[in-house]
Amino acid sequence: MDRLQIANGWTPARLVALRAEMDRQGLDGFIIPRWDAYQSEYCVVADERLAWATGFSGTWGLAIVTRDHGAVFVDGRYTVQAKAEVSASHFDQCHLYDQPPELWLSANAAEGQVFGFDPLILNPVVHDQIKPALTGKGATLVPTSANPIDMAWDDRPENPVKPAFPFPVERSGENSSSKRQRLAARLKASGIDLLVESQSDNVAWLLNWRGDDVPDNPMVQAFVLVDAQGAVEAFVDTRKLGNDPSAFELADVTLSDTSLFLERLSQRLKGGETVSMDPKFSPVGAAITAREAGSKVRIEANPLTALKAVKNPVELTGLRAANRRDSVAWVRFLKWLDAEVTQRPVSEIEAEEQILGYRRELDLFVSPSFRTIAGSDANGAMCHYNAPPEGGAPIKQDSLFLIDSGGQYLDGTTDTTRTVCFGPPSALWKKHYTLVLKGHIRLASLRFPEGTRGYQIDGFAREALWAHGLDYDHGTGHGVGHFLSVHEHPQRIGKDPVMAPILAGMTLTNEPGYYEAGQYGIRIENLCEVVADGNGFIRLRDMTLVPLDRKLIDPDLLTADEIAWIDTYHARVRAEILDLIQNTGEAEWLIANTEPLLP
Amino acid sequence: MDRLQIANGWTPARLVALRAEMDRQGLDGFIIPRWDAYQSEYCVVADERLAWATGFSGTWGLAIVTRDHGAVFVDGRYTVQAKAEVSASHFDQCHLYDQPPELWLSANAAEGQVFGFDPLILNPVVHDQIKPALTGKGATLVPTSANPIDMAWDDRPENPVKPAFPFPVERSGENSSSKRQRLAARLKASGIDLLVESQSDNVAWLLNWRGDDVPDNPMVQAFVLVDAQGAVEAFVDTRKLGNDPSAFELADVTLSDTSLFLERLSQRLKGGETVSMDPKFSPVGAAITAREAGSKVRIEANPLTALKAVKNPVELTGLRAANRRDSVAWVRFLKWLDAEVTQRPVSEIEAEEQILGYRRELDLFVSPSFRTIAGSDANGAMCHYNAPPEGGAPIKQDSLFLIDSGGQYLDGTTDTTRTVCFGPPSALWKKHYTLVLKGHIRLASLRFPEGTRGYQIDGFAREALWAHGLDYDHGTGHGVGHFLSVHEHPQRIGKDPVMAPILAGMTLTNEPGYYEAGQYGIRIENLCEVVADGNGFIRLRDMTLVPLDRKLIDPDLLTADEIAWIDTYHARVRAEILDLIQNTGEAEWLIANTEPLLP
Repeated sequence: MDRLQIANGWTPARLVALRAEMDRQGLDGFIIPRWDAYQSEYCVVADERLAWATGFSGTWGLAIVTRDHGAVFVDGRYTVQAKAEVSASHFDQCHLYDQPPELWLSANAAEGQVFGFDPLILNPVVHDQIKPALTGKGATLVPTSANPIDMAWDDRPENPVKPAFPFPVERSGENSSSKRQRLAARLKASGIDLLVESQSDNVAWLLNWRGDDVPDNPMVQAFVLVDAQGAVEAFVDTRKLGNDPSAFELADVTLSDTSLFLERLSQRLKGGETVSMDPKFSPVGAAITAREAGSKVRIEANPLTALKAVKNPVELTGLRAANRRDSVAWVRFLKWLDAEVTQRPVSEIEAEEQILGYRRELDLFVSPSFRTIAGSDANGAMCHYNAPPEGGAPIKQDSLFLIDSGGQYLDGTTDTTRTVCFGPPSALWKKHYTLVLKGHIRLASLRFPEGTRGYQIDGFAREALWAHGLDYDHGTGHGVGHFLSVHEHPQRIGKDPVMAPILAGMTLTNEPGYYEAGQYGIRIENLCEVVADGNGFIRLRDMTLVPLDRKLIDPDLLTADEIAWIDTYHARVRAEILDLIQNTGEAEWLIANTEPLLP
Repeated sequence: MDRLQIANGWTPARLVALRAEMDRQGLDGFIIPRWDAYQSEYCVVADERLAWATGFSGTWGLAIVTRDHGAVFVDGRYTVQAKAEVSASHFDQCHLYDQPPELWLSANAAEGQVFGFDPLILNPVVHDQIKPALTGKGATLVPTSANPIDMAWDDRPENPVKPAFPFPVERSGENSSSKRQRLAARLKASGIDLLVESQSDNVAWLLNWRGDDVPDNPMVQAFVLVDAQGAVEAFVDTRKLGNDPSAFELADVTLSDTSLFLERLSQRLKGGETVSMDPKFSPVGAAITAREAGSKVRIEANPLTALKAVKNPVELTGLRAANRRDSVAWVRFLKWLDAEVTQRPVSEIEAEEQILGYRRELDLFVSPSFRTIAGSDANGAMCHYNAPPEGGAPIKQDSLFLIDSGGQYLDGTTDTTRTVCFGPPSALWKKHYTLVLKGHIRLASLRFPEGTRGYQIDGFAREALWAHGLDYDHGTGHGVGHFLSVHEHPQRIGKDPVMAPILAGMTLTNEPGYYEAGQYGIRIENLCEVVADGNGFIRLRDMTLVPLDRKLIDPDLLTADEIAWIDTYHARVRAEILDLIQNTGEAEWLIANTEPLLP
């Protein structure tokens, strides 16, 4: 069973069952976020509560169900999909930002009503966003002791118990006790007595373990509490640690069951402590529990997220090596596709499986790092498209094909996008591809002060498009983990003001794009490391080493510096990748596709 | 008496008097912001309370005085100055952002203590920032009914009663009743029942009046309350309206005395209304009053500020004309300075008076728009330098001279900075000047989507400096009023995330710089209008038309496009300004200084 199947199986009977349970709990309404208690968009099947309750199969959104009504809130990516999937007679369809939940509650809540939420799932930001609307109407917002959906959902699957495994210091570059000491020093310096941490990637980094709880995400679902001495209490299903927990770096870690998280938090607080938690990535139940215990709660940027984001030399060496190997899979795949498409149309699913096949042959490969986005022609214009099991659109000789794909390796995580064609490109394809490439090069060439925030440099990736009256409606870059999440915080390059400073040692993607709805999509994404560039300045350095499609480049739109950048990049790709390719045909393809534009 | 004299006259006796009054009011501490009840940094002398209480003469800061201690909080611009001016035995010297007031209060407040603030002066942001620190210590924060400084300050001047005057529709482009209707529609659409407005420039725009209460700021100090039908109650010293208030557009405006502001607000609210006010530019006393009345208070971006910022065609025509005339004063001044400096050293004060003299000869001139910053050599490196009455540093043949100056005209406000030299420039001057100029040109040439926020384009003005490991520590652009404030909100180009969208019809300065402490400062500032550029895109268009110093430009550092930009700009300067110059010598100077770089 997966999210799509759960969503497809929706009938009004589910709402009847949910409302019966809400009634038993004395609730007039219930808040249903998409994410789980680990504040992750990547969920186990049992956490697909939004899909179960509404039929909506997207990966981001929120619903509210009342005794006789409901509403689904999704962002711009999902408005069309939600309309197709969700019953309009049972749910209002609202834009998450233009018609936010608090507005709907102001119109639909009534005096004396009680709205419930799962205290482990709702985060402080959303809680504080909707609460005033309810209190303004004389209604209340209360935590439930048992999630009504879990009670009402008959065939709700068990959480799988997948084994965790230790992540040795040879790979992590720093043992857990050293990480805990560095974290403790930060907590002490910030006056934090206890850190509440519920993000599995942060926990995995801190405890040097990995797992397989959620597809494509090598994490173990767990919470931790860390005090200012660096002592850790971890809340985890200990069955995942197997028969020999001593294989893990857990000698001085207290292990408790996940179900005891809030109870233990309450027991540990005597009142007066300063407890810190993340605004968007922590359960509001922890804030409520800590306030009830008389502690001072600080909802603030997470110091553990910031520590994890700056990679150590071993992590960086691993990431570079993983990206080099992954680039080999890309070269082999692109060569295969070039040849195959001249013979017959290739389906999107075939392409997805082919690149996965090449990755499987690589050292240290574990899994994809996310579901590959392989979009031919019009499907490429949908930024979050996934090909259906039947195969999807054909990739033909006259197609423009976008593929965004990456792998999890024991030494790092990868994330790359290339857009390619097979026959002669149209003038418009070349123009749009070259404008996107100009933005990519601008950001790749930029030197900027360490500590700059991503929103200060986002525009450089857009300038060439802007000059032609064009733009793209997504961010320009995100962090990527070290054999962890493919979307890693806190750094980000985008239009919205994310305040995290960009620091040397971080990872960032560089991925401008252009989308012609109903026609085609173009995106060029390299994973980069942030490197020191003297005098307190930094710049991006490519870790992805995959040729660009030279057919799509219009040199007339490029400056001499831009052409030199492309030729230098391709020379580096050839120098670092060619030796890793055994097959003569593949080697010849690589050489041909890394020739200089200006000979 | 001015701020400097008030500050210079500081003795500990003032603190004795202030503490005696605090004691009479039962206060253990008192909060003293620099700004006034109109939330303006431009104050009348009677509002220079910070200077009176502490001896600090800067234009931004905050102090706290307790029964036996005190602290002064200033930002990076003023740390050196505060150390020189403020008695260290009476005040801790704190950095406004690194050691903020709440931190000092956490360390210095005690259980049961009462801290007071003037409810018309403190804004909601600062109030909400310091209150938790006090309640955390068991202390309370209360509004005073009379400002203790006003009671303790013996020779505190009376507020001057300067006449207001109507600003006719021929100049404003829209009568007040139309403005009120547009504002009312916005209030209604946002669900606002009552808008609290205390910024004099917003009031002046709405009521089409101007005045002379504060030097260089043609505003009338006033508060207004605006309801969702557009009905206005104005709180103003009616003596300023003279014998014939019918000359103003006030037929359907209720006039009340400023002293009745909070009382009338309280009387008007019946409970349940939604009252809106600005977080940084409104008195927290209004929020307290409205909450006590049972109204819902929304602290949010001010819709009146947003309306005022987008200029109508008459305002834009006026601004262009005012800038053209002001540019004539600049040309005459620069020509005079060129000639004069070859004869003798010119003092900074002389330069300031000379450009003012040329402005006085221009049509519609009213006053400077701010105190001219005229900094020769090392003084140019201090961004907020003002020359002392004695004259300041000499401008010599081997000097690098920065002058930032503007005027208030009945048809618009101006703000321009030029950096010039007289003999052959050093290689480093040329390099730094040309890098600043490249940033200026980048921003001036940028096409970007309407609605972009200033922080998204700030980096373009810095890129050339960044590439050389350099930067500047101030914003890149601010709004300018139409015969109103020279610093106008909400738009701004800078590193910090100001969320106001940039819209066609707004004004913005373009003013990158570079500062070599102890040596020299470079800044190039043009005032621009934001113009539509097709397809939902916008760009800046220069209104300032003053030649750049071609001696300081190194063409080897410029691209062909950048050189073309300079030549095009100079051609436009010559075409639009030459006809306005009568004097042959001045005309020749203009022609010589607008020759193309590439003939």
